[in-house]
Amino acid sequence: MAVPPSTHPHRLLPLYLGLFQGALLLFFALFVTYDEASAQVEDTNLVANQVYSTFPFFQDIQVMLVVGLGLLLTFLPRYRFSALTHNFLLLNFSMQWALVLQGLLHHFHHGQIHLDLHKLLISEFAAVTVLISVGAILGRASPCQLLVMATCEIPVYLASEWVIVTRLGVLDVGGTITIHVFSCYFGLGVSKALFRAMQQPLHSKETPTPSSDFMSLVGTLILWVFWPSFVAVLCQPGSAQHRAILNTLLAMSASAITTVVASSLLERDGKLSPGHLQNGSLAGGVAIGVVADMSMPPVAALALGSLSAGVCILGFRFLTPLLGRKLAFHDQCGIHNLHGLPGILGAAASVVAVLAASKDTSGSHSFQLSPVGGNGSEVVEGQCGLLTGAALRLPCLARLPERLCFDDALYFKIQDQAESPGPDSSAEEGALALKE
Amino acid sequence: MAVPPSTHPHRLLPLYLGLFQGALLLFFALFVTYDEASAQVEDTNLVANQVYSTFPFFQDIQVMLVVGLGLLLTFLPRYRFSALTHNFLLLNFSMQWALVLQGLLHHFHHGQIHLDLHKLLISEFAAVTVLISVGAILGRASPCQLLVMATCEIPVYLASEWVIVTRLGVLDVGGTITIHVFSCYFGLGVSKALFRAMQQPLHSKETPTPSSDFMSLVGTLILWVFWPSFVAVLCQPGSAQHRAILNTLLAMSASAITTVVASSLLERDGKLSPGHLQNGSLAGGVAIGVVADMSMPPVAALALGSLSAGVCILGFRFLTPLLGRKLAFHDQCGIHNLHGLPGILGAAASVVAVLAASKDTSGSHSFQLSPVGGNGSEVVEGQCGLLTGAALRLPCLARLPERLCFDDALYFKIQDQAESPGPDSSAEEGALALKE
Amino acid sequence: MAVPPSTHPHRLLPLYLGLFQGALLLFFALFVTYDEASAQVEDTNLVANQVYSTFPFFQDIQVMLVVGLGLLLTFLPRYRFSALTHNFLLLNFSMQWALVLQGLLHHFHHGQIHLDLHKLLISEFAAVTVLISVGAILGRASPCQLLVMATCEIPVYLASEWVIVTRLGVLDVGGTITIHVFSCYFGLGVSKALFRAMQQPLHSKETPTPSSDFMSLVGTLILWVFWPSFVAVLCQPGSAQHRAILNTLLAMSASAITTVVASSLLERDGKLSPGHLQNGSLAGGVAIGVVADMSMPPVAALALGSLSAGVCILGFRFLTPLLGRKLAFHDQCGIHNLHGLPGILGAAASVVAVLAASKDTSGSHSFQLSPVGGNGSEVVEGQCGLLTGAALRLPCLARLPERLCFDDALYFKIQDQAESPGPDSSAEEGALALKE
Repeated sequence: MAVPPSTHPHRLLPLYLGLFQGALLLFFALFVTYDEASAQVEDTNLVANQVYSTFPFFQDIQVMLVVGLGLLLTFLPRYRFSALTHNFLLLNFSMQWALVLQGLLHHFHHGQIHLDLHKLLISEFAAVTVLISVGAILGRASPCQLLVMATCEIPVYLASEWVIVTRLGVLDVGGTITIHVFSCYFGLGVSKALFRAMQQPLHSKETPTPSSDFMSLVGTLILWVFWPSFVAVLCQPGSAQHRAILNTLLAMSASAITTVVASSLLERDGKLSPGHLQNGSLAGGVAIGVVADMSMPPVAALALGSLSAGVCILGFRFLTPLLGRKLAFHDQCGIHNLHGLPGILGAAASVVAVLAASKDTSGSHSFQLSPVGGNGSEVVEGQCGLLTGAALRLPCLARLPERLCFDDALYFKIQDQAESPGPDSSAEEGALALKE
Repeated sequence: MAVPPSTHPHRLLPLYLGLFQGALLLFFALFVTYDEASAQVEDTNLVANQVYSTFPFFQDIQVMLVVGLGLLLTFLPRYRFSALTHNFLLLNFSMQWALVLQGLLHHFHHGQIHLDLHKLLISEFAAVTVLISVGAILGRASPCQLLVMATCEIPVYLASEWVIVTRLGVLDVGGTITIHVFSCYFGLGVSKALFRAMQQPLHSKETPTPSSDFMSLVGTLILWVFWPSFVAVLCQPGSAQHRAILNTLLAMSASAITTVVASSLLERDGKLSPGHLQNGSLAGGVAIGVVADMSMPPVAALALGSLSAGVCILGFRFLTPLLGRKLAFHDQCGIHNLHGLPGILGAAASVVAVLAASKDTSGSHSFQLSPVGGNGSEVVEGQCGLLTGAALRLPCLARLPERLCFDDALYFKIQDQAESPGPDSSAEEGALALKE
Repeated sequence: MAVPPSTHPHRLLPLYLGLFQGALLLFFALFVTYDEASAQVEDTNLVANQVYSTFPFFQDIQVMLVVGLGLLLTFLPRYRFSALTHNFLLLNFSMQWALVLQGLLHHFHHGQIHLDLHKLLISEFAAVTVLISVGAILGRASPCQLLVMATCEIPVYLASEWVIVTRLGVLDVGGTITIHVFSCYFGLGVSKALFRAMQQPLHSKETPTPSSDFMSLVGTLILWVFWPSFVAVLCQPGSAQHRAILNTLLAMSASAITTVVASSLLERDGKLSPGHLQNGSLAGGVAIGVVADMSMPPVAALALGSLSAGVCILGFRFLTPLLGRKLAFHDQCGIHNLHGLPGILGAAASVVAVLAASKDTSGSHSFQLSPVGGNGSEVVEGQCGLLTGAALRLPCLARLPERLCFDDALYFKIQDQAESPGPDSSAEEGALALKE
């Protein structure tokens, strides 16, 4: 699979990353410190308690993003190294980039940025948007294109989050609106601009094998287990955090069961689709984020989890093929079904929850309506994605030819997985096949 | 592998699950709340501390059950999707069902059940019994049969736990007697009733491949690592919990080493059996549960871990074939060796520990003897299992024909793993084979 | 692959392990207790807080060593059971052995050793040295040889750690010098003595397959995620621990990006090498350990992470082939690149950090220079390794013949992975190959 070096999709990667890393070192050298001065006067117990109350959550989230999401993306059998590695690379790149931008925007005092675990966590949340958006174009974009996308997406996310949370005062502790809905429509915009009106024909390497589907399902289960940490880490300690954990657990549990019901009803012979399980089981976690710490009865969490899983599966079964056929929308991982639809559902639920609460306390909370009411934000996010996608079409980032998509061999020095060694064969699976 | 739709083993699944989920929503809507009233007056720090002291343990247990146990069950190479997914589905179903029943039985005050993390944890423990019992009939029962089994087992478990812990006052912090021994004999009863006197011939898909054995071993290691959290989570904070963690670590460590010794001595050429490693390494964790927080010297934990691993391996080597041949007992995963025998050993050890302690304090603790002395409980549990197993033979839950056992293709929309693509073959394993 | 029983490499294993386990039981029975007396008077909250502040870190480290490192070592496709199981066995054996020795040396008061979680943790750290050293001879040594090596390495480590930390007063909270550098040179010494001047020809089973490389990469990611817990667990609670976590996160993140840059620049066509990713991503964690809790600006952690990843990749690309060709050094996993070079880099950084700090506080900290200045310690460690390696050549531990290396079939009762079943073949990979 020889590619002339000059057009090789990896050509710019070390340059781009190297320059970024150098600039980051310079930035850190000039502006970033630990808060030693105040650390010496403050109470050791206080810092220790902050560490013990945040760090386990932080580790859970790292496992989710690096291992869980990494494995979830390995459902493309010839692309598992790339999926795992690009996810890992983008997480680190985006987190560092977000650290710089957030430092400049929010934490720049007297020419210094005081780094702490909370700021790293916030940057990690920003990086999640990139990891989600990538799902729309997984396997069809080069690592350089993905890095350019990350470079554009982080500042757009920070602006969008500032408008939604700081200006409009929308409550969104688990990032349903600011992270999931945002990154979904941004990613779809990128995909649209990158592939224009072309319908992507089904690629021979695009079909999951049982092995790749299995590892992807393991990734889903890891995400499923640790999701409550993601939703609850930024909550107010005490009752609110406790409630957020419980609501997330209930929603995820309801999603798991509804996914089986819905998949079984929609597939032929009542069989389950691995793709449905991989996504539907997590839909409740996406939807619950925005209401997780609000005052609402536990039944609402269960219902929201059930509904979002149902919507997610219906999306996979009907909406994705429709969008692909009619509008030539390309969405490789179905992020619209896992992040878009359940996110909008969660946002709608938050409006109900806020209205119900304000009826009691007679306050006015019309802000929660704003990002959903007109659906304006999705359009803006999509527009930003379109612009970013247009940037990815720049000549220096030449698009992958169709035959090179979904293939690790282009990026990794591995034994070619497609090479056929002749009449000999796998002992293990073959021996089973013989027995039939 | 066409099955006429009317007899398809998945037919009732969405109906059963859907009705259950609907009923659960109704139940939650009517009776379940968060304890908001008291939350407002109580100390935020108190709630926060409860969250930080329980939640990390809870997450560890979720990883054990969803990822660790899920992978452990994937040793059947054609049945890994089913093993992983049914385990996940049954955990959620049983946990919700236990939440309802425990709420009604124990926590129903003024028409309300106040949900908190502790109650979810207790329900999770109840769900574990189902996940263990399934091991006896793994691969030979349809998902519907498994759900019916879960429906029956949870109330029996709650009754049994009430008798043993509440009425008899037996100490069992890690669930050795109430969870492991109970679910083992319940599962064997189900298996006996389901398969009657028929000896199950060895199925061609029943033999693990190196790949499936490997993933199963990874599952074992995950369970091994997090087991101390399972044993210690319900202990009294402070010294008792500290001791429970240490005892479990010591017992698990001794189990690991003794497993290698015993397997190496019992197998031909001193080779190790993957099946022994997958089970023996965990036997110490099963046995230690009942004595983990008691006052006993550390050597007792080591000895118990060693002994239980030895008993487990001996069970696999001699008892399982014997029970299968003489009594036509079918125990697919060997739950009698991992949960039954070490559990009884742990119960016996607890009697010694209680007697030794009572000698010092001159109190009477004969209660600890009760569930073990007459072995009555095992018989009762087996009887309940038999009844449940008989229910699984109801015509509407028609048994799987032999040729459809152990096969994901019946339940999942996946590329048929058995289909032979002709002379071409796996590059990777084949290339290695060529080199030989 | 028949081996005459008398020369079978497993022959002595159960004897050796069994005797050890028996001696351990005796030792525990005579000398080890829990600290019950003081437990009754001390504050429950104090013990509980110790548990909650140490146990989550401890569990993270267990996951790293059992699952993460275990999987990282499975890159040899025919040796994955052995790699995973021997790692698990050696961890338990070495931890118990270290518990005994450390108990005798440091914690023996009035004929008693009071066991607690902190002592188990310290023993676990000692066991890590063995798991690292094994990397030099992975696949070419029998389990018995590995156990003998562990038996020798633990006391040497304890002596070395006592000299470096207690006598010389070197600061090394994350074990960079005492664990990583030590075990690297010890392991290389063992390898040198075991294989003498023979160059090991490339073995047909030594080449990773995409599947084995993939699982190994998953292991790396698990190690990467939990590494901050390893570095920070022994830090002073409060600011120092907080800083250690942040520094480790920054160093690991910089390592990840620099690894991609360096691998892409050094490999043909800008492709990435899985081996580079598996090791380089972790180099920052090795190097940062010795300075993690020191007062230094965040940029130093970033720079150290970048540098160590670069050094690690350069080592793989140039130094390992050179050492192999010129000096016949055999280093199967490249531990010199992952643990040796980054460790020395970290040690050098610590000298700079200490000198910079002492300039401010005008104290003298020349001790930090000692283990690095003359590089004396590496020579001594290598010598100890040579002696140990010589012991592994004892006739009763007969060396594996070349054709039996890297093969699970020698140690495990599994279906032979090399057996060719004829023209039939793996459905999954084959079907893909057909489509090309």
